[in-house]
Amino acid sequence: MHPEGSVLVEFGATRVLCTASVTEGVPRWRKGTGLGWVTSEYAMLPRATTTRSDRESVKGRVGGRTHEISRLIGRSLRASIDLKALGENSIVIDCDVLQADGGTRTASITGAYVALYDAVTWLAGRKKLAGTVESALPRSVAAVSVGIIDGEPRLDLCYEEDVRAEVDMNIVCTGTGDFVEVQGTGEDGVFNRDQFNQLLDLGVAGCLSLAAAQREALGL
Amino acid sequence: MHPEGSVLVEFGATRVLCTASVTEGVPRWRKGTGLGWVTSEYAMLPRATTTRSDRESVKGRVGGRTHEISRLIGRSLRASIDLKALGENSIVIDCDVLQADGGTRTASITGAYVALYDAVTWLAGRKKLAGTVESALPRSVAAVSVGIIDGEPRLDLCYEEDVRAEVDMNIVCTGTGDFVEVQGTGEDGVFNRDQFNQLLDLGVAGCLSLAAAQREALGL
Amino acid sequence: MHPEGSVLVEFGATRVLCTASVTEGVPRWRKGTGLGWVTSEYAMLPRATTTRSDRESVKGRVGGRTHEISRLIGRSLRASIDLKALGENSIVIDCDVLQADGGTRTASITGAYVALYDAVTWLAGRKKLAGTVESALPRSVAAVSVGIIDGEPRLDLCYEEDVRAEVDMNIVCTGTGDFVEVQGTGEDGVFNRDQFNQLLDLGVAGCLSLAAAQREALGL
Amino acid sequence: MHPEGSVLVEFGATRVLCTASVTEGVPRWRKGTGLGWVTSEYAMLPRATTTRSDRESVKGRVGGRTHEISRLIGRSLRASIDLKALGENSIVIDCDVLQADGGTRTASITGAYVALYDAVTWLAGRKKLAGTVESALPRSVAAVSVGIIDGEPRLDLCYEEDVRAEVDMNIVCTGTGDFVEVQGTGEDGVFNRDQFNQLLDLGVAGCLSLAAAQREALGL
Amino acid sequence: MHPEGSVLVEFGATRVLCTASVTEGVPRWRKGTGLGWVTSEYAMLPRATTTRSDRESVKGRVGGRTHEISRLIGRSLRASIDLKALGENSIVIDCDVLQADGGTRTASITGAYVALYDAVTWLAGRKKLAGTVESALPRSVAAVSVGIIDGEPRLDLCYEEDVRAEVDMNIVCTGTGDFVEVQGTGEDGVFNRDQFNQLLDLGVAGCLSLAAAQREALGL
Amino acid sequence: MHPEGSVLVEFGATRVLCTASVTEGVPRWRKGTGLGWVTSEYAMLPRATTTRSDRESVKGRVGGRTHEISRLIGRSLRASIDLKALGENSIVIDCDVLQADGGTRTASITGAYVALYDAVTWLAGRKKLAGTVESALPRSVAAVSVGIIDGEPRLDLCYEEDVRAEVDMNIVCTGTGDFVEVQGTGEDGVFNRDQFNQLLDLGVAGCLSLAAAQREALGL
Repeated sequence: MHPEGSVLVEFGATRVLCTASVTEGVPRWRKGTGLGWVTSEYAMLPRATTTRSDRESVKGRVGGRTHEISRLIGRSLRASIDLKALGENSIVIDCDVLQADGGTRTASITGAYVALYDAVTWLAGRKKLAGTVESALPRSVAAVSVGIIDGEPRLDLCYEEDVRAEVDMNIVCTGTGDFVEVQGTGEDGVFNRDQFNQLLDLGVAGCLSLAAAQREALGL
Repeated sequence: MHPEGSVLVEFGATRVLCTASVTEGVPRWRKGTGLGWVTSEYAMLPRATTTRSDRESVKGRVGGRTHEISRLIGRSLRASIDLKALGENSIVIDCDVLQADGGTRTASITGAYVALYDAVTWLAGRKKLAGTVESALPRSVAAVSVGIIDGEPRLDLCYEEDVRAEVDMNIVCTGTGDFVEVQGTGEDGVFNRDQFNQLLDLGVAGCLSLAAAQREALGL
Repeated sequence: MHPEGSVLVEFGATRVLCTASVTEGVPRWRKGTGLGWVTSEYAMLPRATTTRSDRESVKGRVGGRTHEISRLIGRSLRASIDLKALGENSIVIDCDVLQADGGTRTASITGAYVALYDAVTWLAGRKKLAGTVESALPRSVAAVSVGIIDGEPRLDLCYEEDVRAEVDMNIVCTGTGDFVEVQGTGEDGVFNRDQFNQLLDLGVAGCLSLAAAQREALGL
Repeated sequence: MHPEGSVLVEFGATRVLCTASVTEGVPRWRKGTGLGWVTSEYAMLPRATTTRSDRESVKGRVGGRTHEISRLIGRSLRASIDLKALGENSIVIDCDVLQADGGTRTASITGAYVALYDAVTWLAGRKKLAGTVESALPRSVAAVSVGIIDGEPRLDLCYEEDVRAEVDMNIVCTGTGDFVEVQGTGEDGVFNRDQFNQLLDLGVAGCLSLAAAQREALGL
Repeated sequence: MHPEGSVLVEFGATRVLCTASVTEGVPRWRKGTGLGWVTSEYAMLPRATTTRSDRESVKGRVGGRTHEISRLIGRSLRASIDLKALGENSIVIDCDVLQADGGTRTASITGAYVALYDAVTWLAGRKKLAGTVESALPRSVAAVSVGIIDGEPRLDLCYEEDVRAEVDMNIVCTGTGDFVEVQGTGEDGVFNRDQFNQLLDLGVAGCLSLAAAQREALGL
Repeated sequence: MHPEGSVLVEFGATRVLCTASVTEGVPRWRKGTGLGWVTSEYAMLPRATTTRSDRESVKGRVGGRTHEISRLIGRSLRASIDLKALGENSIVIDCDVLQADGGTRTASITGAYVALYDAVTWLAGRKKLAGTVESALPRSVAAVSVGIIDGEPRLDLCYEEDVRAEVDMNIVCTGTGDFVEVQGTGEDGVFNRDQFNQLLDLGVAGCLSLAAAQREALGL
């Protein structure tokens, strides 16, 4: 009801509520540059997971994993937006995981882009955008997780698969299949160039079909 | 999918996700007493409200309002449960407000009771309850907000009404209309005994109809 | 010696030092409104109680109970003051419990009002008040705790009684017996309308005699 | 009423409430050594000073000055006690400044010793002391501030003098005039050996008369 | 002088002090598994950079970037070690940047491996290792940063280049050129598969020559 | 490479990196006074000591010892500088202990003065100093630790001696042997006037030879 953009994204059993909050103006260090600002914050509800986690607010500090994912979402969104065309407006995208079953960071990025698009459209409708919606969002972003399980490359791992994966990779692509960010980790050992290439192929294909789903959700 | 009890409660445009998390055993200071333990934590998503609030995890501290409401929900739930019949089990009820439009604390209590009932039933199904479900939950609890607006007593205020209310009262009752907790505040000035009595009448009636809705939701 | 108003209030064995600190000007968000601001902070010395509690400064966070009481005192004082007549001045009332034996929050409110009166008089003496002392403080506030012990309503519980009380209620009234805030809790179970009414009668009478004591202390 | 030892010490207009809290047993790292443990915590009420300071609990951290003084008081008290004769008991001395007018740390040490003596006597009365009171406290400690103002050595500076002092020194002595701790600071520039010697003479004499006052307060 | 392993690694003008601290035993949740534990903490001295940054200890919280890098170093080291052959010992690798000029995280990983090797050798010399040094460290790890500047792939960017890079990639490889972790980010826009492949070629070659330098430093 | 002044000071096996960071302008409360500002922050790397200490950034709070030493270094440096001749510039001196073997605070002060001298010279070279280098730094400061071990006065204690010392004293002097700060503690019991005088003699002589070393390092 309240946010300028909001999406409930579902990837398998994973559910993430992505909301976009627009503020006119930018942080002080950016004033007068003509550029806007986009950031993101990610968090999990305490019982989004199989066992309950303590709230970070109660612990009094944001954990390393939360920080890392928030930063990844923010960087990915900034790859999709032209901050000059946005003008001196700030958009915060909150990604709150209601239910987790693997792939929460990639679901967050994919949903966050849609919320961001809505927010930019909202700004355009109020004549507060420096450019057009198209110039402000020249490319879409979407993300998938891929991994190798029992020697087999797999797309979009659920939690149980994620735990078993020998290699785990998060791929963020534009709607035309260019890379925005690639993070690959040999969770249990290492991986070679061939495996890397297979995972990239799988990931790019996954991102392209998500881009189609985003366009459909946005009625484009 | 994950919690032992979970409810999405809707009061007008207010939406609160209440989940119950069961742990066998109790905190150290309670071990060996034969008594269980029930607590609650309340929080709001940053954009549940008309303008975005900073996350308490990012600020590094839980605010006074959050503390106060978490404590109120916990006390209310402990009024409904027999901790001896619960046995040495712990239940945490998380109430996360997804969308706020007034009455989030009373909606939380009303939903939390249903999630608690589910969790107690779950324990009974696993033969981990010291008593029966009926002995563990001898009375239900539900809550409403009432207030005086332009001199008129009103039930279940939305945000806009809440801001304008001269008197604001939260009433927590059992399913038979006894009081568990009453908190009345003269937001703008003071109130007299007559007004107090009118608000109590209205509040008790509201709680009784919520108790009926709870029974229906639980199939009782 | 230093504060603009200060009172050492004694309720039974409970001792609370209430000081009022005046600052010209108001917080930034209130500037230019012509309205003043009154807040309160409550705390306990570590050995005010039967066993020593850790300092909240050392724990690095203010606890839920402290927050809740600070907010209650602040709301109660703001019910007594006309912020317009106060003008753009800020008053902080600190209530520090030197020795606790039940009823520390109600003793704090009762003492805090006297310290507030002194501070407002101090401002008037320096011609810094927008209105007169009478217009700035149109009504006094005082508070008592009441409870039901062994089925009997009782006024002003000491710690030992407070622990045994079946129902525990804090009542804040003006000098003419109107309600500012009522907080009733069924510590051990629930309470009915009759018990509620008896406690209100007792509480209002208690507040009225405290109001007389306040007038005497202030030489009014 | 509650503490095992408590003293309200007055030095000029300075008022410090010193309480001693006894716990049987010692921190884990000290268990089984046969040695006791004595620590101290110092704090100021927010309006003990001419202008109000923010509470350290609200700021979420203990300041450097508070830490420094707490550590000084603890070291001074441990110089007076035989931890072996104390046995495996812990004593925390809280020094809370109710009103400050210079010399709060030296007043705290002087009062803390008396509270400590009471606590040790309390332990002896309950047969919980490994040795006698005399063997547990073989020497008393007291402290004074001295300084040079307008070239003149002065004893026991009030706040206004303290601010003007060119040299500021805190001297902690035993009842026989031996040094426990000496901290001298050239607040405004430096000091030479002659000035140092004059301040030491003055400080030792001051500590000796405080030791007599302590004996009188304790009825020794 | 003190650590069980220590290295001062220099990459261009970047200087990182890597120390390895060994503790017998493992955290509680790992006890009895026969497995060891390796973690890492990364930090920068306040003036390691061109302008001074506030200390994270003074700010009271560890920043997102610090968390992210500490986690990356830890994962990379755990890819090199066989925790079973390590036995129930814990090793913490501290990487403190004394002077920064780009590539501090990759320099840290490369130096940290050498400090880890020293610590494992130290354990072997004391017969505290479950296996041999070779079985405990079956593969080495080293890391480089690569990037595209003005359309040209470049190895080991200094700070000024890093800021200008269109694509920035950190590559962690074993001594035989397998991948441990790859993190590629399109800082300014996006990158395609060809650019990706060029950067991987360059990065693997860089890691292999660092592996040779590590062997030389360790006298292998 | 980056700081306006930097020194790696060695006292025995103790190594402290002292850097000076200059900022034009002063904190807000000092603006317009024509006076500059000098502060210092002290910290230890986690494995500077024989066993690893947890990082204060990870613990989320700066410890009492760290605070105390930072304040001591800051006071000592402010005794050497004329803040009027410095003009409205701020200098922060960071003292980070890379390796500790006793006397880290006195080594820090001695090195910090040299870094401060470099920073003041740097300001003079850019014509940003209100006065000359000589007028801005009218006196040098240096510090030593002295103590009594087995009844013998000793200069510059290493860690092992420091632990065994009966009396421990830190002496900060100017280049002409005047006192800036003296802190003497009877670690194990007390000390008399004779012992005090012997330690002062030894300390002043130590400071004078350090002052000569500082002049040499600065080429004066």
